[in-house]
Amino acid sequence: MLVSGKSYRTIWLKPDDESVVQIIDQVKLPWRFEIVDLRTVNDAATAIRDMWVRGAGLIGATAGYGMYLAALEAGRAADFRASLEASARLLIQTRPTAVNLAWAVNRQLAALRGCPAADDAVKVAKEMACIIANEDAAACRSIGQHGLGLIRQIAANKKGGRVNVLTHCNAGWLAFVDHGSATSPVYAAHDSGIPVHVWVDETRPRNQGARLTAWELAQHGVPHTVIADNTGGHLMQHGMVDLVITGADRVTRCGDVANKIGTYLKALAARDNDVPFYVALPSSTLDWSLRDGVREIPIEQRDAAEVTHMEGILEDGGVRDMRIIPPASPAANYAFDVTPARLVTGLITERGICAATEEGLLGLYPERA
Amino acid sequence: MLVSGKSYRTIWLKPDDESVVQIIDQVKLPWRFEIVDLRTVNDAATAIRDMWVRGAGLIGATAGYGMYLAALEAGRAADFRASLEASARLLIQTRPTAVNLAWAVNRQLAALRGCPAADDAVKVAKEMACIIANEDAAACRSIGQHGLGLIRQIAANKKGGRVNVLTHCNAGWLAFVDHGSATSPVYAAHDSGIPVHVWVDETRPRNQGARLTAWELAQHGVPHTVIADNTGGHLMQHGMVDLVITGADRVTRCGDVANKIGTYLKALAARDNDVPFYVALPSSTLDWSLRDGVREIPIEQRDAAEVTHMEGILEDGGVRDMRIIPPASPAANYAFDVTPARLVTGLITERGICAATEEGLLGLYPERA
Repeated sequence: MLVSGKSYRTIWLKPDDESVVQIIDQVKLPWRFEIVDLRTVNDAATAIRDMWVRGAGLIGATAGYGMYLAALEAGRAADFRASLEASARLLIQTRPTAVNLAWAVNRQLAALRGCPAADDAVKVAKEMACIIANEDAAACRSIGQHGLGLIRQIAANKKGGRVNVLTHCNAGWLAFVDHGSATSPVYAAHDSGIPVHVWVDETRPRNQGARLTAWELAQHGVPHTVIADNTGGHLMQHGMVDLVITGADRVTRCGDVANKIGTYLKALAARDNDVPFYVALPSSTLDWSLRDGVREIPIEQRDAAEVTHMEGILEDGGVRDMRIIPPASPAANYAFDVTPARLVTGLITERGICAATEEGLLGLYPERA
Repeated sequence: MLVSGKSYRTIWLKPDDESVVQIIDQVKLPWRFEIVDLRTVNDAATAIRDMWVRGAGLIGATAGYGMYLAALEAGRAADFRASLEASARLLIQTRPTAVNLAWAVNRQLAALRGCPAADDAVKVAKEMACIIANEDAAACRSIGQHGLGLIRQIAANKKGGRVNVLTHCNAGWLAFVDHGSATSPVYAAHDSGIPVHVWVDETRPRNQGARLTAWELAQHGVPHTVIADNTGGHLMQHGMVDLVITGADRVTRCGDVANKIGTYLKALAARDNDVPFYVALPSSTLDWSLRDGVREIPIEQRDAAEVTHMEGILEDGGVRDMRIIPPASPAANYAFDVTPARLVTGLITERGICAATEEGLLGLYPERA
C-alpha cells in the first residue's frame, strides 16, 4: 500500500543488500515513519518482542525472515544445526501466544532439515521467508477481492453513492505483509474507483484504530473519519453505516469471533439496525479445535497502564506518555471479546465468503470435516 | 458527598461571608481540587460558560445563586430592576441549550417581581437560590432511595455478594448539587453497608467517567474500576455486571433516553445478556413534548478536538493537552445518542421507579396526562 505516494509492504529484503531485512518501526507510528534494518536473528527477535512489528500475519512473516537471518548466522557458527535451533527457540519465545510465529519458525526448520550445507540452507531459508510473506500477501489480496463484491453491490444499490464502512481496531496492511484483512476490501474498492469512506473506531485502550488504521488510510488516500468507540451505534441508527468489517484474532469452527475488545458491541448495534456485519480473516486465524467462543476462548488481561495512560504528541512535537485517569482509581484492561456467530453476517476468507457457521466454514474448508 | 473525608455539596454559601458563593472548579478535576469564590453575577456567568460547573442540576443551581449575586449587585445599581434583568440575560446566554438554566433564572425573576425594595429582594433571592439547590439535592436523594431497593434486592439474591453496577459518563453528585442521579443509588447502597462495586466507563471523548465519576467514587470510598468503553459487553457476557445505571440528558414522554454517546451500545449489551438497564433522572430531565427520541432529538456535534486531543498529567505533574490522532485524519464528535425505550428496564425518578413507557411515566406524573 502507499506511504507518501510510494508502494510498501511491511517487511522486505533490502534492495541493495539482501542480507538485511527491513521493516517499518510501528511503535513510532503515526508520529514518525521510520524504516529499521534487521541484520541478525536477535534484531528480528527484538522487533517482534518490542512490537516494532505486530499482527498475526506480520509476526509470522518476521519470524520467517528471522530464520533466514538465523541461517546466515549459522553459516558462520561452529555448529550450524545448533545455532539454527538456538535461533528458532529465541524467536518462538518472543511472543509465546502468537500462533503464526511458531508456525513460521517450524516451517523453516522443516525446510532446512534436508539441507546438508550452510550455503544451501541460506538459499532455502531465503526462499521460504519470501514464500511465507507472499502467501500472506496473496491471502489478504484474495480476501479483498471477495469483499470487493460486497462493497460493489452496496455501491450499486446506492446508485454510486458513497459506501460507508465501519471498522474496529487495526486489521490493516500494517498487521499483515500487505493489504490487510478488514481493510483489504476497502483498498480494493477504493483502487477500483468505488467511492468508499471508512468510520475508524479509535479503539481504546491501545488506540490502534486512531494510530494505525487512520494513518494507513490517510497514506493510501482513502477518505475516513476517526470516531470515539462509543459512536458507531448512533451512526447505524441514522443510516450512516452501510457495512461493518472487522478483523479477528481467533475464530472458532462454529464462527464465534474473538477480536479486539468492543467488537461485540458493534455487532450488537449492526444487528439492531440491520447493518451487515462481516469479519475478514485468513484461514490461519481459524481455530478448528474450538466451538463455543464465549465459553472456550480465554480473554487476556493486559497491563492496566494501557487504560490509565496514553501516548500522544505535544505541541512542540515531543511524543509523551500521560496519565489520563486519577491515581486513586484502579483500572482493568480486558484485551478481547467474543462476538457470537449469530451476530456475524458472514466471514470473508481467502477462499471466499461463507456463513459464520460450522457448515459454512466446512463448505470452504472441506478438508477440516 | 465526601472529599478527603469532608462532606461537600457542589455549590454553597461561604460560611463566614454569605455574600459569596463557593463552587468546586470542575475543569481542574481530577488533577486538582480547588474551591472558587463567586462574588459577582459575572463570576457566576463565567463559571457556567467555562464549565467550572456542569451538569443540568448544578447549572440550574448556579444560575439560582447567580441571581442572588445579581440581586446584591442590583441593590448598589442606579436602576435596580434594569440591573437585575441585565444579569438574567447575561446568565441565560452563557449556555443557551441548558434548560435548567433559564428555568432557574425565570423562577428567581418571578419571585423577585413582588419585591419593591432591594433589601427584600436580596433576602428573597437568597432564599430562592437555597430552595432551588435543596430541591435538586432532595430529588437526587430520593432517586437514591428508590434505586437502593433495586440494589438491595440484587444483594439479597447474591446472598450478600458484591453487587457490580456499570455506569457510563458522569451522572454523579458533581453534575448536581448532591448525590447525583445514576450514582445516588450506589452511594445510598454503599452508605448503608451493601457491598457495591462500580465499573466506570472511561466515556470517550470527554472522559467524564475516568475524570469525574472515578474521582467522586474514590473520594467517597466506593470500590470501583475504570474500564475502556469497549469493555462492558464482555463483562456482561461473563456475569460480571448485575445492573447498569446511567443518567440522561433528555427523556421523551415515551421513555426514549438521550444520554452521552455510547449509552445505546451498553443498553444493547445489557439486553443481550439479561442485565437490568436502568436510567436515573430527576423529572426536570423529562421532555413531555417529544415521543420518538431517535427521530426527534437533535444530536449535537461538538468540536472534533475533543476526539483528536486529550488532557492528562505528565510525570512532572504538569497538566497538558496532547494530540492522539494523526494530523492527516479528520475526526467526528457526536456528543449523545438515543437509547430506545424498548431497551430500558426502568426509569428511576424522584417519585419512584416506572417502566420506560408513556403509561409508566404518566403513572408517576399524572398531571402530564
